[in-house]
Amino acid sequence: MPEGHMIHVDARRFDEAMGDRVVHTDSPQGRFADGAAALDGRTLRDTEAFGKNLFLRFSGDSPQYLHVHLGLIGGWTWWDADHQQLSGRPVVNADSSNVRLRLRTGRGDAERSAELRGAITCTLVDEEGMDRAVAKLGPDPLRDDADPGLAWAKVRKSKKPIGGLLLDQAVTAGAGLIWRAEVPFLAGVDPHRPGVDVTEDEFTTMWSEMARVMSEAVERGGKEITTDPADRPETDGHVSRDDAFYVFRRDGAPCLRCGTEIRVAEMGTRKVWWCPTCQPR
Amino acid sequence: MPEGHMIHVDARRFDEAMGDRVVHTDSPQGRFADGAAALDGRTLRDTEAFGKNLFLRFSGDSPQYLHVHLGLIGGWTWWDADHQQLSGRPVVNADSSNVRLRLRTGRGDAERSAELRGAITCTLVDEEGMDRAVAKLGPDPLRDDADPGLAWAKVRKSKKPIGGLLLDQAVTAGAGLIWRAEVPFLAGVDPHRPGVDVTEDEFTTMWSEMARVMSEAVERGGKEITTDPADRPETDGHVSRDDAFYVFRRDGAPCLRCGTEIRVAEMGTRKVWWCPTCQPR
Repeated sequence: MPEGHMIHVDARRFDEAMGDRVVHTDSPQGRFADGAAALDGRTLRDTEAFGKNLFLRFSGDSPQYLHVHLGLIGGWTWWDADHQQLSGRPVVNADSSNVRLRLRTGRGDAERSAELRGAITCTLVDEEGMDRAVAKLGPDPLRDDADPGLAWAKVRKSKKPIGGLLLDQAVTAGAGLIWRAEVPFLAGVDPHRPGVDVTEDEFTTMWSEMARVMSEAVERGGKEITTDPADRPETDGHVSRDDAFYVFRRDGAPCLRCGTEIRVAEMGTRKVWWCPTCQPR
Repeated sequence: MPEGHMIHVDARRFDEAMGDRVVHTDSPQGRFADGAAALDGRTLRDTEAFGKNLFLRFSGDSPQYLHVHLGLIGGWTWWDADHQQLSGRPVVNADSSNVRLRLRTGRGDAERSAELRGAITCTLVDEEGMDRAVAKLGPDPLRDDADPGLAWAKVRKSKKPIGGLLLDQAVTAGAGLIWRAEVPFLAGVDPHRPGVDVTEDEFTTMWSEMARVMSEAVERGGKEITTDPADRPETDGHVSRDDAFYVFRRDGAPCLRCGTEIRVAEMGTRKVWWCPTCQPR
């Protein structure tokens, strides 16, 4: 599942390629035919990402917002004017018959199209609908308007493990398995520690580290890296997947800081990783 | 998560290395100290795998059965007399402090030890406890005593998708994400097809294909391959992960039989893959 920073990357891409332009829309798969017809020919006014939710605001009558949540398997594919693929997973299917929604804009070399496949949410909503969806979410560390105090108020009262709380989109919006593992490492906190046993200083560190690593990932176009160059075996510029993280998917490998074997456990039916030495309970 | 065939591989390994021998047991982590103390010095009499559940029967007073379910992250690591690792994920942790249970047997060169990490179930049960655990499971295609009719009776009445039913351990025991994707492909059935719309012939094909591909994986020591050599790009003996499956994790790639783009969707919070041409709805 794409974590929240990727949705902010998607929002930027829509802004740059389609912002303030007339957009043509259709639904090759047919499952969003009515929605696509309602958007066709409108202008993209704004893009907003809240955690893993993307909202595109269009000109015209209500409903104005396209709400997309990619879920576990959804994704956007971008194409240029010559139908060369610009981003997304490699696609071989020329007939696009599994594309829920296609947006196309620009002319000549500026032509771009974006195809949406496999999203769990793809729907048109009015402003109230957007507010309702956003109201369910905790603060998103990537947003300037986020209030970390709302997240801290929930964390400090909860007996659930901090690794689970970070994944709960109603506590903080945007984190997935990568950040829920890496952020407690960066703050030196065992992810099993109950929220009630996390100090305010530790929470503040986690919030600012999450904002930092997610922002850096957005700047890199999505690529997630949390390791400090000094902790990486190689520093020739290229950071391999193996060296990009301190604990995520590194169970059985030695900690890059202390050499202790990285652990893995189940937490809420999903995996969590940590270093038992660097992250005291 | 290891699928059922790996548990049958584990059962064989215990049989070969420790069957009819006195076994010494301890719990370096301490969380299974009482259980390990109760088993220490007993003889391993039998091993049984039912789906993803392993039962080791020991000599002595009840409880005689060690019941292990690896869950999402559990695993066995095997070591020889010189403490060289024989199998399992690479382990660097010399002090074994995350080992729930360690079993050791043999003398001299025949010495073997098995370490259990991260299992969701590791418990001692009596015969009744084992029967209770097994009674919850559907038939296991790898077992000679399995009755596929019990699975078919559930499938034919269910409106749930066959891809979900195959993953339900109460319908068939042992399948995970690989088999629930590959087996419908081998039978030419869309995994979204409701159980009630699967014909008895199609179900019989799925059952026998599941038994075949899982047995072959057991014979290979666990390695899963479902593709026919004629459908693989290379046939030099080595089968890469990319060529081992028809649909599992191949979304976006062309079908090895017809070239159509393999699809992915969410089913019961997990992924399922299929070829829309080879697997009609």
